[in-house]
Amino acid sequence: MKLQDVLHSEIPLTVSIGIEVLEYDENSLTLIAPLDKNTNHKNTAFGGSLYSVSVLTGWGLIYLLLEKHHLTGFIVIQESNTRFIKPVTSSIKSTCSFDSETQTSKFLSMYKRKGKARIKLESRIACNGEPSVIFTGTYVVHR
Amino acid sequence: MKLQDVLHSEIPLTVSIGIEVLEYDENSLTLIAPLDKNTNHKNTAFGGSLYSVSVLTGWGLIYLLLEKHHLTGFIVIQESNTRFIKPVTSSIKSTCSFDSETQTSKFLSMYKRKGKARIKLESRIACNGEPSVIFTGTYVVHR
Repeated sequence: MKLQDVLHSEIPLTVSIGIEVLEYDENSLTLIAPLDKNTNHKNTAFGGSLYSVSVLTGWGLIYLLLEKHHLTGFIVIQESNTRFIKPVTSSIKSTCSFDSETQTSKFLSMYKRKGKARIKLESRIACNGEPSVIFTGTYVVHR
Repeated sequence: MKLQDVLHSEIPLTVSIGIEVLEYDENSLTLIAPLDKNTNHKNTAFGGSLYSVSVLTGWGLIYLLLEKHHLTGFIVIQESNTRFIKPVTSSIKSTCSFDSETQTSKFLSMYKRKGKARIKLESRIACNGEPSVIFTGTYVVHR
């Protein structure tokens, strides 16, 4: 099952937000959502939509990592910090990448050993080439 | 215009989330949203929905404060920290209160003087009497 279908079927609000998977390689995931479904009182992107796309970019990146390693688990957000630097006046395009191979291998070995592991990821939304939202989230994965 | 109508007309995603105003007195606002529109892969409330309701509780409290003082302005979120302590398995009920009269009077006098002011607010979501989400947001209001 593709990530986009997983999101739409398991988290119905993602359909209203219009989230789509734009790009994926093993170390990086980009999700996109249209502005028109996510406007606020200033006709820029609503903070709750920016947050949703950001948190799901990290969630999706972990989901795809587990899948690649034939693992399953529940991925939940534990804590997050979000900085809104500039308004987003175009599609919401959020990218999340793993820091390094060391980060993913440590995370995977902990998860295999303990059935529970924690990982900190950063998602970034840019607009017209400039950073607009920086989201840092700590996720917990458990069996 | 009532706050609930403002939210629904200016931020269309709030209709999908099903946000309603539950209670308001001058120092405190409670918003509510049903679980069924906001579920995730674990059938608890989706983090993006919890965030949206939390951020809008602070936003709404400031909106109503400005209105009470016959002021208008744009209210935007600048930075936030969100701790997800326990899953939310019922309606999402978020409450935000001003810290003190000093906080609101300082904020209002700054806004009147400079046309721009900053305020830090905490929204809390409880589930079955226990704290589930603690959101701290710094909002900027400008003309």
